[in-house]
Amino acid sequence: MTAAGFDSTPHSETTESGAQPSAPSIGVFDSGFGGLTVLRSLLERIPSASYTYLGDTARLPYGAKSQATVARYAVSSAKFLVEEQGAEYLVIACNTASALALDEIRASVSVPVLGVVETGANAAQASSRTGDVLVVATAATVESHAYAAACRERGLRALEKACPLLVPLVEEGWIDHPVTREVLSIYLSELMQQTHDAGLMPDTLVLGCTHYPLLRPLIERSVPASLHVIDSAEVTAAQVAEALCAPKDTASAVKPASRFFATDSVSKFRALGSRFLGRPIEGVELVNLGG
Amino acid sequence: MTAAGFDSTPHSETTESGAQPSAPSIGVFDSGFGGLTVLRSLLERIPSASYTYLGDTARLPYGAKSQATVARYAVSSAKFLVEEQGAEYLVIACNTASALALDEIRASVSVPVLGVVETGANAAQASSRTGDVLVVATAATVESHAYAAACRERGLRALEKACPLLVPLVEEGWIDHPVTREVLSIYLSELMQQTHDAGLMPDTLVLGCTHYPLLRPLIERSVPASLHVIDSAEVTAAQVAEALCAPKDTASAVKPASRFFATDSVSKFRALGSRFLGRPIEGVELVNLGG
Repeated sequence: MTAAGFDSTPHSETTESGAQPSAPSIGVFDSGFGGLTVLRSLLERIPSASYTYLGDTARLPYGAKSQATVARYAVSSAKFLVEEQGAEYLVIACNTASALALDEIRASVSVPVLGVVETGANAAQASSRTGDVLVVATAATVESHAYAAACRERGLRALEKACPLLVPLVEEGWIDHPVTREVLSIYLSELMQQTHDAGLMPDTLVLGCTHYPLLRPLIERSVPASLHVIDSAEVTAAQVAEALCAPKDTASAVKPASRFFATDSVSKFRALGSRFLGRPIEGVELVNLGG
Repeated sequence: MTAAGFDSTPHSETTESGAQPSAPSIGVFDSGFGGLTVLRSLLERIPSASYTYLGDTARLPYGAKSQATVARYAVSSAKFLVEEQGAEYLVIACNTASALALDEIRASVSVPVLGVVETGANAAQASSRTGDVLVVATAATVESHAYAAACRERGLRALEKACPLLVPLVEEGWIDHPVTREVLSIYLSELMQQTHDAGLMPDTLVLGCTHYPLLRPLIERSVPASLHVIDSAEVTAAQVAEALCAPKDTASAVKPASRFFATDSVSKFRALGSRFLGRPIEGVELVNLGG
């Protein structure tokens, strides 16, 4: 497998036996558990692939750390997935790493790399008619203005809003809870006020954090019906499938293979991660990347 | 300065000039900003000391990490403060590190070490008449049962309650906010129910997280008046002062000297840290401890 763009490596060739199309090996990386929502969507959309997921749980969260630190952590994680685990494609399912370190990751490995910021911005471009887009994300992602930059490159105007309490609320398991509804209501009313003040006419809301797909039903009930909500996990899986020319009808035919690595407590990873993956996680392996 | 217990190194000797008592050099360590509430209390109680504060912000939070990882991080931080910065006393102002790694830290440095778990338990012992104590803390501190163990050693029964949302609420700046009051009310009513179910008669509530002193007024208004609230920052400063035989009347005479180190973004440290220290922070220095 040589280095190539996602759009130039169709997996339609047969193996030496001629019996099966080759199964692409996809590495999925996040600082923690949130990226499992992306893996969940990938498993549904491309069940024929084999997956290696790495959660850099010993060094999470990336959100509060500087660009230099995030880049150092993300590059060592990407190298582990490609050089040691043989991933042929890399999905950066971590908004902070995608926002702050995508160039460094691409420069450090020899396989195609796709990050959730660009897949979210691509989906926003396909969705928006008015050209005005809202983005909710963690404080670090918003401070990086990565979504605004990616949207601007695509001719869109983006208003970004930091929602720092949503991740801890999801991790507390308060998914459909009065406090979460209240916090969301405060954040969204602030966002609507800022939208009004800026004179924007948004028709699209990007969930710019991999924890937020778990709040998608609550968020969709809380925003005007005119706003199309983009779930970054779902659109990332769709764009990976498109790049790999993955057939859509293999869902029932193949059982996907997944391996899980974490840089800290594997038992915690199993327990917390299952909520994000939507199914039990077995066999998490511990890996030491330094630090 | 040789290694010695906190209670055996009084600082009443004069310097060669005979003019001033020697100023002890105290290292204060936390994974992030919370320990600044302990430094704030130390600065008020022992203004004659010189302080070196290290926030291991590149690797925070410790709360979600395993014992082995926390010990590795805490030991490297302690060695930095003692071996490179010349601290003669070490205050572990981090509940997770105190709970999980105090023995490893003590074994790795040659100066007296005091951790906030033991100072909190000491204060609970001095406060409680019924022998029943409540502790609120992060999930990791509660899972370690370090407070329960420290209380048991002192003849107390402790009921511990994890309050994972309080740290992010403090960091969001929602100190006296309706959502914080609601979250606190949920946590405290669960705690009171557990107290009732366990047949306890508590008269003392330990704030087992260095973020919680900022919520102390709200917590004191939310619990029965019969509960004495122990602020771990305040009692830690008092016990360090006692161990050092620090005089109580130097507050106005001496301007304390402090140096600040962080393992990640120093600008973020300055901005967020000032809220915890209660005064502006200038001159934060970046240090790389690996990872």
